[in-house]
Amino acid sequence: MNSRRFDAGVYRRRLAAAAAATGAAGLDGLVITPGYDLRYLIGSRAETFERLTALVVPVAGSPTVVLPRLELASLKESAALELDLAVRDWVDGENPYELVSGVLGGVRAAVTDSMPALHLLPLADVLGVTPVLATDVMRELRMVKEAAEVDALRKAGAAIDRVHARVPELLVPGRTEADVAADIAEAIVAEGHSEVAFIIVGSGPHGADPHHGYSDRELRVGDIVVVDIGGTYGPGYHSDSTRTYSIGEPNSEVVQQYSVLQRAQRAAFEVVRPGATAEQVDAAARSVLAEAGLAEYFVHRTGHGIGLCVHEEPYIVAGNDLPLAAGMAFSIEPGIYFPGRWGARIEDIVVVTDDGAVSVNNRPHDLIVVPAS
Amino acid sequence: MNSRRFDAGVYRRRLAAAAAATGAAGLDGLVITPGYDLRYLIGSRAETFERLTALVVPVAGSPTVVLPRLELASLKESAALELDLAVRDWVDGENPYELVSGVLGGVRAAVTDSMPALHLLPLADVLGVTPVLATDVMRELRMVKEAAEVDALRKAGAAIDRVHARVPELLVPGRTEADVAADIAEAIVAEGHSEVAFIIVGSGPHGADPHHGYSDRELRVGDIVVVDIGGTYGPGYHSDSTRTYSIGEPNSEVVQQYSVLQRAQRAAFEVVRPGATAEQVDAAARSVLAEAGLAEYFVHRTGHGIGLCVHEEPYIVAGNDLPLAAGMAFSIEPGIYFPGRWGARIEDIVVVTDDGAVSVNNRPHDLIVVPAS
Repeated sequence: MNSRRFDAGVYRRRLAAAAAATGAAGLDGLVITPGYDLRYLIGSRAETFERLTALVVPVAGSPTVVLPRLELASLKESAALELDLAVRDWVDGENPYELVSGVLGGVRAAVTDSMPALHLLPLADVLGVTPVLATDVMRELRMVKEAAEVDALRKAGAAIDRVHARVPELLVPGRTEADVAADIAEAIVAEGHSEVAFIIVGSGPHGADPHHGYSDRELRVGDIVVVDIGGTYGPGYHSDSTRTYSIGEPNSEVVQQYSVLQRAQRAAFEVVRPGATAEQVDAAARSVLAEAGLAEYFVHRTGHGIGLCVHEEPYIVAGNDLPLAAGMAFSIEPGIYFPGRWGARIEDIVVVTDDGAVSVNNRPHDLIVVPAS
Repeated sequence: MNSRRFDAGVYRRRLAAAAAATGAAGLDGLVITPGYDLRYLIGSRAETFERLTALVVPVAGSPTVVLPRLELASLKESAALELDLAVRDWVDGENPYELVSGVLGGVRAAVTDSMPALHLLPLADVLGVTPVLATDVMRELRMVKEAAEVDALRKAGAAIDRVHARVPELLVPGRTEADVAADIAEAIVAEGHSEVAFIIVGSGPHGADPHHGYSDRELRVGDIVVVDIGGTYGPGYHSDSTRTYSIGEPNSEVVQQYSVLQRAQRAAFEVVRPGATAEQVDAAARSVLAEAGLAEYFVHRTGHGIGLCVHEEPYIVAGNDLPLAAGMAFSIEPGIYFPGRWGARIEDIVVVTDDGAVSVNNRPHDLIVVPAS
């Protein structure tokens, strides 16, 4: 496997499935500008430019890449050549939206979520009909991961586990959160990710803010430290894992409340199987915390889907009655947050299997005690 | 000045000018989602999320930020609070596009280029009228830099000059282009940029590809090396400067052709003044090269505008009869490229003054000879 993309067969199947789903929705085809959907369909990391690049997937016809002649060389950065996709290049003076319309063979287009107004409005003008969002079509495809995607998520998970294994030695009193984050950034790449996606080092009171990044606060003995980190791996899949550390021995209140959190995370994991709903997973974690009187300190949803995006469907949240299916991948990450004092979170990425779930992260769930000196 | 944004007065003037230009275009107002236009108008670095954040600038009414309640804290990352902007926050279950429509007070909206389909299509639905692009309105404003912007470009230019001053010591035979690029990345930040924007290290035959990045090719004695680098500075303005280096003494062909390039760059600079057109600047560089028989080796436009974007209007290219005006900022960067052999480019960012132009880059234009051992 090319580490930057999958075999052509993967993309060929996806293109066929996308065309079929688009036809079933009563549309003439998809128009996909650079972004996650383009990466999903043909492995392209192209970025959006002022000149239109678009993959057109007609329901009746061949998928075709429309792009500026001066960007033809970029095709080799995707699977377009291996897929032997039709290519229609254009030069300044031509109207690329007319080209898209011709390939589409109809006026009822579904466009990728991220298509910028710069391209969407001229396309709508040429079609004479306002396009609709391809969201529904693409979500159904992207939500259920194929074997190769699960493999990428597993490798990303193993890589971030290796980073967490290095975190204790970084948590030295007197160092700042930013110092620790810089070392973690290096480790994320050193352990095999192509880039850093995000880093949270929330020490002491900062751990009580789930959206904290990192700051110049110096670590102190007695701090509880939330470390939530992730990177991009191989063909663009993400890792995302949180562990909580204690600098020196934690007090008995922390020990007791952390143990409830650990049970909540486990309870949510045990609910996961095909047919269970997303909201049931959320409720499982929440009820363990509620029984211990901690409900009000768990202030966010239990998890989010993950793949080419760090946050995508399915969202593990109250009100989402989506039935889980084998191949879905998402985080289970309950947390407890005591404003001004401390916080804790445990996060693994799990993949739904035929009869349950498997975690791609395998570091211990315990509060990790780092020697204070 | 806050290094991340300008004083509130700058944004207040821009908002008033944007509203006036929008009204003059016969529209009811602007709708600006996160991106360069939002940064220009209120100093916000917000990114696009699935939940709508938008600045609405009605022609008749007060500019208002519409955003999810859970992102209210992000307002302090922009100038919104100092500007005392009206804020309309929303929660799940509300229709944010209805809120935008209410603030707009009309249906004729101009939207920022980068607004994603995800938000544009529901907005068009609510308005009942397809929005138009705000391109014309925003281009007129953004193209002519204010004093504070010129100051930021000057400081960015001085910072990248300091990086170029460090390049000769990095060009050691046996090191790879990637090794050199890694050191340059560190230097770009060390010299005061907030981040690296791009790095080209094109040695030997790679210098003949204007779009080369860097590779594992090892530097050799006799290489001509094109180094084109830039970063983001202060409130988001960019540096972008190219110098060409020779490892060891260059041969007489290189010396001769480089001297023509140097005259071409100078000739273009000398044409710049208010009222001269963009294409005249391009033609000035091109004709010097043509007279020396080098026209066919100069394969790109002479320059591009720069500011919050690395590439923006005005483009210094044949066919662009835009008259230059004091405050416009752009690159002058002719190059010569001999496929398979070598290339050279000289690039400065210049700002149009009342009677000519000033360069923000001030390193010598000579081919810089680095000792071969």
